Amino acid sequence: MRYFVTGAAGFIGSHLADRLLGAGHEVVGYDNFSTGQPEFLQEAQRSPHFFLVRGDTLNQDSLTQAIGRADFVFHMAANADVRFGTQHPRKDLEQNTLATFNVLEAMRANGVHRIAFASTGSIYGEPDIFPTPESAPFPVQTSLYGASKLAAEGLIEAYCEGFGFHGYIFRFVSILGERYTHGHVFDFFKQLRDHPDELYVLGNGKQRKSYLYVQDCIDAMLLIIEKAQEKVNIFNLGTDQECEVDDSIDWICDYLRVSPKRIYSGGERGWIGDSPHILLDCSRVRELGWQPKLRIREGVIRTLQYLEQNQWVLGGRS
Amino acid sequence: MRYFVTGAAGFIGSHLADRLLGAGHEVVGYDNFSTGQPEFLQEAQRSPHFFLVRGDTLNQDSLTQAIGRADFVFHMAANADVRFGTQHPRKDLEQNTLATFNVLEAMRANGVHRIAFASTGSIYGEPDIFPTPESAPFPVQTSLYGASKLAAEGLIEAYCEGFGFHGYIFRFVSILGERYTHGHVFDFFKQLRDHPDELYVLGNGKQRKSYLYVQDCIDAMLLIIEKAQEKVNIFNLGTDQECEVDDSIDWICDYLRVSPKRIYSGGERGWIGDSPHILLDCSRVRELGWQPKLRIREGVIRTLQYLEQNQWVLGGRS
Repeated sequence: MRYFVTGAAGFIGSHLADRLLGAGHEVVGYDNFSTGQPEFLQEAQRSPHFFLVRGDTLNQDSLTQAIGRADFVFHMAANADVRFGTQHPRKDLEQNTLATFNVLEAMRANGVHRIAFASTGSIYGEPDIFPTPESAPFPVQTSLYGASKLAAEGLIEAYCEGFGFHGYIFRFVSILGERYTHGHVFDFFKQLRDHPDELYVLGNGKQRKSYLYVQDCIDAMLLIIEKAQEKVNIFNLGTDQECEVDDSIDWICDYLRVSPKRIYSGGERGWIGDSPHILLDCSRVRELGWQPKLRIREGVIRTLQYLEQNQWVLGGRS
Repeated sequence: MRYFVTGAAGFIGSHLADRLLGAGHEVVGYDNFSTGQPEFLQEAQRSPHFFLVRGDTLNQDSLTQAIGRADFVFHMAANADVRFGTQHPRKDLEQNTLATFNVLEAMRANGVHRIAFASTGSIYGEPDIFPTPESAPFPVQTSLYGASKLAAEGLIEAYCEGFGFHGYIFRFVSILGERYTHGHVFDFFKQLRDHPDELYVLGNGKQRKSYLYVQDCIDAMLLIIEKAQEKVNIFNLGTDQECEVDDSIDWICDYLRVSPKRIYSGGERGWIGDSPHILLDCSRVRELGWQPKLRIREGVIRTLQYLEQNQWVLGGRS
């Protein structure tokens, strides 16, 4: 099989490329390196079956040419940071919604009909039901990020109905692990490296979240595209476990052997559009035989180990 | 109050402008006249409180300038025809999703924070629950039109959370009445005028739909923006009644005194993305004290009367 992976130099995309290559497939990686890192592709580029195209998902012609004769598209490229939406609302619209439209049109132009999409549990907004199933009541969006991903989901579904596509929509919790380049573990590690005595925490520390280790995430995606054969296949991906931000801080401080004073910005939400409670019902993917190998704490520790050994990733964006 | 109405020369928008002017408000109408009709604004233009701006919702600068010091925005402009999405997927994206983003950004630039939006029951896709409530299970989109409106809803909701907007989202069934310029009554009337002996029907005639008379629709919208004061206010708008396409054909043929041979294209759906059953649970708006004055059959008859007396509307697009 020949897979086309957008965001192939990103956190999840690069692991996915490695795994697909390891399973004997061809991979065409597509990335504009705005947040993707060439270093993440070092392993992939040792394979003769890996092809890298430097391009932007907003460039329709480049995308159409690059997709070419792919059998399957993993659309992982995105503006993945939910926090700064109100600072630049057009960014989520362009990089998540319009980019997905461009990918779909590029696929249609090439006669490619199978797409998997990295969506997010953020599209449930602030749900009333926990754990939240895929069939939760029609949600109200609370972030531009969530809105932009919801829009992309809708486009994919409409292409499935209208153009005979098969779609796989994965609603992730936050993903942790090697090559992790943003999020709370990243921020806290960076802060504690620079000033071990103080930790600034967005919100009151009581936000309850779920996290999934990146290899568990990829296990699930690869199992789902093999086993699920509906026109539209929607799956939550997370663990059955949740933790408070304060729990995660405890684990991080224990690991780093620091005892900072914790300074909370306060409020139930860390930022505008932050969901104070995220826990997804993942029984649908579990029924296919998947279960995560790592618990949240183990995922946090793996992430810290990676950051310790790869402090260059802290240098750039946060 | 000064209302800004996009799509003011359209079917619903022009009636809305008339009603707002009649209630003593100022109205700035915005329309590119791609489907809007100057004739629909004849009544409005007799008012000294009506101001017309010819402009496109894809033109951010024009929109921003036109919204100016409005108190409230009714965003009614859209590509309103669900049927032809697969012929031009970019049209729904641009005219519904991007246009809504532009309206929101133009509002933000002007410090205007209250928006009402013409959404659609099509965003429920093919639901399992009838009548379908606003809190129906998370739907799967089946049309590019529905997907584009869902995306617009999500943007509005995110602006409510992120920028302190107040949003009113109306999920309409099909609307009927004077100034109606597309839809099944339009198509059937036009066909029967041209060839009274034959009627081509998309689908098997058994699709079950709900319709609402335009003045009932406007009554509901005006009541809701007066009474509902949540950050995000989502309301289905329809009747508690449904009919089969064949019922509607019976009423149309009785009224026109014709007995055509009915030729069905067949299948449960009239076109790609057609929902074979639409019936919305409108108890939420009814609880505010609204109820429709006309039943579906009466709405169909009013539409036929209008079309008979205004056959010029049949000449252009269908």
